[in-house]
Amino acid sequence: MTALTNHSKAGAGRTIISVDAMGGDQGPATVVAGIYASARKNPDIGFILHGPRDELERLVTKRKGLAARCEIRHAPETVTMQDKPSHVVRHGRDTSMWSALESVRNGEATVCVSCGNTGALMLMSVMRLRKLPGIFRPAIAVMWPSQNPQKHNIMLDGGADIRADAKDLMQYALMGASYARNGFGLARPRIGLLNVGTEEHKGRAELKEAYDLIAANARVANFEFVGFVEGRDLPGTRCDVIVTDGFTGNVALKTGEGIAKLISDLLREAFQYTPLSRLASLLAYTSLRRLKKRVDPRRANGGVFLGLNGTVVKSHGAADATGVSSAIKLAFELAQSGFSAKLAARVASAALLDQDTPTEAQSNGETE
Amino acid sequence: MTALTNHSKAGAGRTIISVDAMGGDQGPATVVAGIYASARKNPDIGFILHGPRDELERLVTKRKGLAARCEIRHAPETVTMQDKPSHVVRHGRDTSMWSALESVRNGEATVCVSCGNTGALMLMSVMRLRKLPGIFRPAIAVMWPSQNPQKHNIMLDGGADIRADAKDLMQYALMGASYARNGFGLARPRIGLLNVGTEEHKGRAELKEAYDLIAANARVANFEFVGFVEGRDLPGTRCDVIVTDGFTGNVALKTGEGIAKLISDLLREAFQYTPLSRLASLLAYTSLRRLKKRVDPRRANGGVFLGLNGTVVKSHGAADATGVSSAIKLAFELAQSGFSAKLAARVASAALLDQDTPTEAQSNGETE
Repeated sequence: MTALTNHSKAGAGRTIISVDAMGGDQGPATVVAGIYASARKNPDIGFILHGPRDELERLVTKRKGLAARCEIRHAPETVTMQDKPSHVVRHGRDTSMWSALESVRNGEATVCVSCGNTGALMLMSVMRLRKLPGIFRPAIAVMWPSQNPQKHNIMLDGGADIRADAKDLMQYALMGASYARNGFGLARPRIGLLNVGTEEHKGRAELKEAYDLIAANARVANFEFVGFVEGRDLPGTRCDVIVTDGFTGNVALKTGEGIAKLISDLLREAFQYTPLSRLASLLAYTSLRRLKKRVDPRRANGGVFLGLNGTVVKSHGAADATGVSSAIKLAFELAQSGFSAKLAARVASAALLDQDTPTEAQSNGETE
Repeated sequence: MTALTNHSKAGAGRTIISVDAMGGDQGPATVVAGIYASARKNPDIGFILHGPRDELERLVTKRKGLAARCEIRHAPETVTMQDKPSHVVRHGRDTSMWSALESVRNGEATVCVSCGNTGALMLMSVMRLRKLPGIFRPAIAVMWPSQNPQKHNIMLDGGADIRADAKDLMQYALMGASYARNGFGLARPRIGLLNVGTEEHKGRAELKEAYDLIAANARVANFEFVGFVEGRDLPGTRCDVIVTDGFTGNVALKTGEGIAKLISDLLREAFQYTPLSRLASLLAYTSLRRLKKRVDPRRANGGVFLGLNGTVVKSHGAADATGVSSAIKLAFELAQSGFSAKLAARVASAALLDQDTPTEAQSNGETE
């Protein structure tokens, strides 16, 4: 186990997760409900919880046994969804988000979780944790339900930056491959580059350039490049990791959520339609619940910021307790796998290769 | 009724649809099956069918009564999905796609339907039918299932052009509003501009510019501008028409299809899981079929090219007979409503307004 532990009140040998209690749409009560659910399931997690002390103490003491696993760090202010990232970074020292990142920065915790303003969290993470050497645009890796054996595909960037040039997309491929290897145990992940068609001559100029860069890195970085993929491959089986810019990725992500919600609403209506279908829904209850669990965005909740000195898990702004608990679970697993250190090593090795001529780089053989 | 009719073999007072029989993934047998289904449902449609005469004659004569409603126009060559649009436009005179557009160009038919290569069909449509005066980038308007009263939302551009600047996006808003008014009977359609957040300071620079342009045109063009919307609003109820560039629109469209397919596959699995759930699926059969019909992409199949002198309906490349028939139905309805002429009038009036100063333009009052 490579995860950092401490021996504070919340620690005693546990893996500590730093949690921003504020800034989610559902408020701190939901965040505390989420960490309580995680604490009950996993005795090896401890928390540092950031926000207004009085409010958090009231919420934590209501949950049996949680106070002993949870240290509260006072932060009087909250970053709202309306705050401009640039403003927050200059004036946000007293916010729970800043405080939560600080616990990772100073080594008290290994991973930070927040449901707050994505843009502000990203910019603050970049400012406080700093980018890995050689990374220009960090990315948010998000998960899609799929029928691949690992049950989820990874897409990046899910919305950290609305732009990405060819080199950024190539770095997303490297980071995504590393995440898939460490998070899903896939020895040789299959990477696809999102486009409007699978033909090589289609799409924007920077995508053609990225295509060549990613193809050139596939052997050394030990992934399989399947080439251009389309929107339908995000929840499909053609690849494990899909690379795109943060604008397109974010639109696709929210589109997928919208369609899943529409179908779920219509399904509920369909089962209410006749007495026979109401009976059917009772008989199929367990099966339908299993399906819901499978595609429920709250279960796969948690985007991971890749490309920084440290790990930040961004939970959905509208996450409920199940969603928060799912993000905590992901944070715990990443902390335990030592993913941050492995990713840094992969990026560093790619940066070294980048300084060589392409031919030398490709003859360096397999490295992990 | 404003639709053109003719008195050829296929005509006799019918509304004539020009159909490209070739270039779809499923081949001409599927296209013929699709037009046969439409012909049986609607006695007022006639067809001009384009492709290799011998093959089409064999397929048509197999369907009882179809030969009397369907004139075959010989075109020996086929545009494939791999063909480059620029090549096809220069060398494609003998293709079924070219021939199908020619029937609209020379007034034999009012609408053309094709399942072929989207890029080639778009470029060929632009070259042969020409753009409406004042339109720089024509767009493909596609439909999303939604819970709005009209049951579908319109999105454009669905993939005609991978780029769109602020002025293009404004024109998409005008054309989309006109389509929603004539196609869905919405007196004052609600228009949204697709972005990664609903806050005004988010997103790309051209989107902020487009925001202002669309807002400035809302009163005169008689639509409601709801501002920025997100991917989840594509199948949502916040607006009726969503405007975006063709790259983002195409990715979103295919993502929606992918998620719908995943859920449908998982639903089928869920109902196979236990004897009880198998029984449930029998009881719920009618309700589930109703749901499937509602979200089935084949039922809403057919993108409409907007911004040309004439109407072209692009059916899904992978469309089966149901999909082709659905595209024919849409083509028939647009022909009957006189939509082409109304859209041309709307764009012409906007172009006139564009020449005035903004203040004068806005004081011109409501026009249709």
